[in-house]
Formats: sequence, structure tokens, C-alpha cells
Amino acid sequence: MATDNSYQALTTDSLADRLGSLAVMANEVGDDSAQWAVQEVGDGNLNLVFIVSGQGGTVIVKQALPYVRLVGDSWPLPLYRAYYEHEALVRQQQRDPGRVPQVLYFDREQALIIMEYLSPHVILRRKLILGERVEGLSQTIGQFCARTAFRGSELCMQSEQKKADVALFAGNVAIPAITEALVFTDPYFNAEMNHHTEGLDPIVEQLRANVLLKQRVQRMLSRFASNTETMLHGDLHSGSIMSTENESRVIDPEFVQYGPMGFDIGMLIANYLMAYFSQPAHRTVEDCLRYQDWILGVIEQTAQSFNEEFTQLWQTERTGMLYPTALFEDQGHSSSDACISVLDHLWRDAYSICGIEMHRRTLSLAHNADFEDIEDTAVRAPLEARNILMGVELIMNANSLESIEALTAIAKRFNQEQCL
Amino acid sequence: MATDNSYQALTTDSLADRLGSLAVMANEVGDDSAQWAVQEVGDGNLNLVFIVSGQGGTVIVKQALPYVRLVGDSWPLPLYRAYYEHEALVRQQQRDPGRVPQVLYFDREQALIIMEYLSPHVILRRKLILGERVEGLSQTIGQFCARTAFRGSELCMQSEQKKADVALFAGNVAIPAITEALVFTDPYFNAEMNHHTEGLDPIVEQLRANVLLKQRVQRMLSRFASNTETMLHGDLHSGSIMSTENESRVIDPEFVQYGPMGFDIGMLIANYLMAYFSQPAHRTVEDCLRYQDWILGVIEQTAQSFNEEFTQLWQTERTGMLYPTALFEDQGHSSSDACISVLDHLWRDAYSICGIEMHRRTLSLAHNADFEDIEDTAVRAPLEARNILMGVELIMNANSLESIEALTAIAKRFNQEQCL
Repeated sequence: MATDNSYQALTTDSLADRLGSLAVMANEVGDDSAQWAVQEVGDGNLNLVFIVSGQGGTVIVKQALPYVRLVGDSWPLPLYRAYYEHEALVRQQQRDPGRVPQVLYFDREQALIIMEYLSPHVILRRKLILGERVEGLSQTIGQFCARTAFRGSELCMQSEQKKADVALFAGNVAIPAITEALVFTDPYFNAEMNHHTEGLDPIVEQLRANVLLKQRVQRMLSRFASNTETMLHGDLHSGSIMSTENESRVIDPEFVQYGPMGFDIGMLIANYLMAYFSQPAHRTVEDCLRYQDWILGVIEQTAQSFNEEFTQLWQTERTGMLYPTALFEDQGHSSSDACISVLDHLWRDAYSICGIEMHRRTLSLAHNADFEDIEDTAVRAPLEARNILMGVELIMNANSLESIEALTAIAKRFNQEQCL
Repeated sequence: MATDNSYQALTTDSLADRLGSLAVMANEVGDDSAQWAVQEVGDGNLNLVFIVSGQGGTVIVKQALPYVRLVGDSWPLPLYRAYYEHEALVRQQQRDPGRVPQVLYFDREQALIIMEYLSPHVILRRKLILGERVEGLSQTIGQFCARTAFRGSELCMQSEQKKADVALFAGNVAIPAITEALVFTDPYFNAEMNHHTEGLDPIVEQLRANVLLKQRVQRMLSRFASNTETMLHGDLHSGSIMSTENESRVIDPEFVQYGPMGFDIGMLIANYLMAYFSQPAHRTVEDCLRYQDWILGVIEQTAQSFNEEFTQLWQTERTGMLYPTALFEDQGHSSSDACISVLDHLWRDAYSICGIEMHRRTLSLAHNADFEDIEDTAVRAPLEARNILMGVELIMNANSLESIEALTAIAKRFNQEQCL
């Protein structure tokens, strides 16, 4: 690294020179940096991501850019997000060991994290577009969501530590601001960076004329921005999961913030639903139906795994100040109903977040490949219409939806409707 | 002050010597510190409070002690609370100018604030026990609660500033921990520091056997501890208000934290209700009925002033990211229903907090003079019983209570019931 260590973006050309003297690179990749193969693969919206290979092995070098990559340097974005991403990875590793990439090295000034290279994992969204199944996906990710939700909350953590973490992550202002604007606000009016598929205008107009819907979404925004139940991943979609045939890992927690316990799983389910609705454009009818059933099964089983794991942790790791055993079990009183009630409130948030995420991924700035890869907009628009209208139903009915099966039933219904 | 400025508690004897060289004291009290009259008047549970008078005038010198005064040095309490109190006073002064004492000087190391001496103000709780009316009380305090709630939230504040404040006040760990334990948890089981009036055992047993009640209270605790809607006073009872016949001021915000917008007004109403229920022991029947009506009127008008002021601010100062005008008014859509909905949710919290505060002031460590001044426990217990049972009703029905008048109607009903 440069002796003054002031930030400089890496390039495929400069990387070997700049990181060549790091012990971790020598150990993990190989002594002779001239032999390293360097490839830039960042396909996200924000960062540089390099795969660096050598005789000793392969690592990922991830570096934040001082602007939003998707938009360019007209939209500056603080480098400090790499610091928060690192802090999040450390905590996720504690709360669900082995589920996130191992961190090998962190340089705050360079906004740079060197981490485990996941292979042969590919981004889950790609697999969903290709119609590939992933064994154990539901259980793995359901448990990840439950463990991080529970263990990052005052159901489990000591309040002093949790408050210190709330203060720490409150410093991550710029990144939550993206979520606040792009997810919760922009889809619901004609915001500058919005775009949507040709043909959707009637549905979009109807959505933006729904004042009660906007009110509900703003209420959820206020619950998102003024709630510190647990440390969220903050961006847990199918592009933040990497899977093999039978193993899944969670990456990219730079949108980390404290927020409602239902946020991550709600956003994830939205992305599964978008995979579901987009299938008819990606494969033949028969394959499509079978694969769509598999996706709905993943949604149901993820929710089930989440609930089972959360309940298990409630029974065995309730060491925080909330719902203390001193008040329940020690008095001969069961806290099972309390756990059910906590889960119930959590799912209200999740359903609402789910609907909002379905909207922003089709109406706001950052769309999903699930739909974007459908080149024929005459095919894409009616599928997106189903997705948008189901989102409305979820937001409006979040408080009365009785189970995850009620959600998948709604998906099945919209999947057969002519919405345009 | 000592040159090394390390913390040392003031005494009436040492104060003139130690503060004699401060310009602010010379200006406000008088040049010759030998002439100062120093009186210690702290009747709260935590701090030293001195009235210092001289030819130039009078000031209040408030200094935190490194332990809970009510309990003694067996319960240490960090001095940093004076820092947060000062930060809170500065913000309250901005949000409702003139309502809190003017800060003249702050010394962080000495945990010491020199501030305006309020005269002829006395603690409102004393007036309520004596049966004295305060003109304008409802409007003043209703507006204070609305202004601080609204202007400290992201309805008004810029998110960057609000998040910085959330981080700042998250450092105040020890003081919220008192609220979390003494207010939300201890009343509902046989906690070590609890005490209650002889004769209440049957009602207390019934309360502590109510598992659903405990669940509701813990849900409110989780909303209190994991919610950053606005900067709260945090301890707004009738002992934190000082009044003359026609003016009221708010003091002592050392319990400041970010929390639900309904918290302060809910706690305040609880203390008015305890004043209400305790009246029969303090005066003759006829006086009592008239004065009780006045108290219920204060409750109703405080709520009304709160709602009016909040609505007014909604219309004129909604400059934060929540419910932005870009999404409503700029689209030709009214946001009035959204404001009503926000107020509705706020009052759900307030009713619930109100019931909980009624419990902790009769069952936990720190009781109210309203009841404690009633020496005859045979008189006190049945009045406290009404208060406790109404608290249960508020907590259980917080979600269905339709208006503040429904709350005062419940108070009237319990005021006529034989609860023991």
C-alpha cells in the first residue's frame, strides 16, 4: 500500500503492486504477486470486486468506491460503508458462524476488505433465473435470518452492548438514506431516477393515486427508520446470497443498520416472489409450473425454518432484558404466547416490507435481473403487473394476513390473473 | 474550581469557594461569594440541587452524584447523565423556546449545570396535593409535548442530524436502564426493591398472575427500548413541572433518550391520574369533587392541545423525510388522514405507557408523594387499588380506547369503585 495510505481505487493493473506486500495475500494467494491473476467482477451497484488467484489460492478483494457505481460520480457515497460492512460481517459470523464469507483483512482507509472466495458458489438470483434448485436453501437462510434477528436484539444481547451497537451503526447515514428514498418513497411518486417498463402506466398511475397505500408505506418507513430491534443485513435479496447445489452463503451486508426484526426476511421473500412471477418468460410451461412450485415451497419453508429457529432461541438464549425469564418461567408462567405474539408482529412488518420491495424493484432505480433479463417488454410488463398488484395487496393487508401459506396463495392467484 | 477539575460533590459549605471565581456566578449572583446564601433543596431521587442567592440574583446549581441518592452509594450511577441533561436542555430550548430553564453554565467534568432559578414556581405535584389550580397548564404542557415530539422526529428533522442525535443519546445507557427495570419490569414480579402499601396484596397478586398483561407490558418495553421516533424528556411527571398560578415550566430531562412519541404525554397523564385518585385523602368531599373535575379537565385539554399543536406542526413544519409533501400535497393528495393515523398510533403507546407508569409508582421503588403523603395506609390502599386496576385496563385496552374522554370516563368509574 502507499505509505500515506490515502484512499485510491484499485484497478486490475495496480492491485498486485498495491497489495503485494500484505502477509495475508502472500499466505492466501502466493508470494509472487507478479503471478497473480486479477479479475474485476463487481456486478452490483456500488463497489469494486476483484477475484485474485495465485498458486496459493484465491481471495476476494472488495473495495468501496466513493460514488454509486450504478449511477456514476454524480452520486457520491461515503467510503465509510466498508467500515460498517466489516463490523456487520464480524457480528454475523458470531451470530451464525460460517454463513458469511470469512474476513481475512480489513483496511479502513482504503475501504477495502479481503475475504474468502466462495467457489463454486454463484449468485442465487442467477440460479433462480436459470431454474436451478438449491438443496437446503430454505433452512439455511431461514435460520440465518432468525439467528441474526434474535441474537442482535435485546431478547438476547445485553442492553449496554446493544445500545453501543445502535450508536455505532447510526453513523452509517448515507446507506440507509438510499433505502429510505429508493425503497420507501420514490416508487410512490414520479421521482427523478424512477423508470418502469413500457405498458405499466395504468397500473403505476393507480398505485400512485392510492393515498392510503402511501400512508401505510410511510408508516413502515417510520418503523424502519425509527426502530432498533436488531442488526439487519439490510439488503438481503437473492443477489446477496451465493449458492452451490446444496450450500448457501450470505454476502454484502453494507446496508447494515438497526431496524425491525422482520425486515430481512420480508425483503428476501419479495425477491423470491419476483423470481416466481418472472418464470413464465424464462422457461417452457411445464418446467415453469414445477419450478414455480419449488419457489413457493422455498418461501414457505424459509418462513417455517425462521419460526422454528426463533422459537428455539427464545427458549434457550433469552438472556436480554426483554421478556425476561424472571417475569415468566421463574414465576411458573409460560412465555410461549409471548413468543408467538412477537413473531406475529415481526411478520406484519415482513409482509409490509415484502410488498414495498416488490414495488421498488419494478418502479424505482434499481431493478431486478429476474424481470430486466426479459427483453421483450410485451412479455415483461404483464408479469411485472402481477408483482406490483400483489405488492399492493400485501401492504394493505399486512395486518390481517394469517400465515405464510396465505401469502403464497395470493401469489398463485396473481400468477393466473391478466393484470394488464 | 479545583485546578485539576476532577469531580467532587459540592456542599453548602464548599460551594461559594468552588464556584466563586466563575464569571457567570459573579454576573448572576454577585461578586462577593462570601455574601452568597446557599441552600440544598434536592428532593428528587438522584442529584444535588442548590439555590444560590446574592445581591445580584439567584441561580440553581444542579450537580449529579455518582450514585442514586434515593438508595445510596450501593447503587452507582454515572455522572455522564449531566452531560445528556445539558444536551437535552439545549434541544428543548430550541424546540419550545422558554419552556425549560435557561442554561447559564455547564461543566462536564463536575457534572454540573448552573441554570435559571424559577420563582415563584413550585413543583406541580405539590400544587396538585394542595388542591391548587394552574391556569394555562394544559395548553403549555400539551404544546411542549407536541413540539418536542414533532421537532425531534424525522417528521421535521433532517435524517443525518437525527441519526447523529440517536447515536449521541444512545450513550446514556445507565439512566434508561433504570426506566427499563423500575418502570417496565419490576412492578410485575416480586423484585428486590419493590414495596407496596399494606392491604394491596390481593390486587398485586392478581396483577402479577396476569400473563397476558405482562406480555403487553414487555411489548411496550420493546417499543420503548427499540424505538427512536423522537427525543423524549423521559421522566415527564408532575415532579418535573414547576408552576406558578398561571405559568408552567419543564425541568430535569436527565432521563432523555430517543423513544416513542407517545411516551412523555402518557407518563404525564398517569401522574395526573394518580393526583386524581389520591384527592379523597387530601381534602373535603365537596372540594375534592370539584378539584378532581379540574384534573380530568387538565388531562382532556392537555391531549387536545397536544393534538392541535401536532396537527399544526404537521401542516407547517413537515420538513423531514417522513410523509414528505412530495408524496402527498405536491401530488394533490391530502395528508390529513396520515396525520390522524400517526396520532392514533402515538396515543396507543401513550395509553399503554400511562397504565404502566400508574403501576410502577405504586408497586416499584420510587413512589409518588400524591399517595405516599397519605399516612393512614387504610385510606391509602383502596385509592391505590383504583389506580392499579385502572392501569391494567389501560394496558389491556390501549388498542381499542377511542379518545381521551374514554380514558377520563374510566377514571371516573374507578373513582367510585370499591376495589379492596
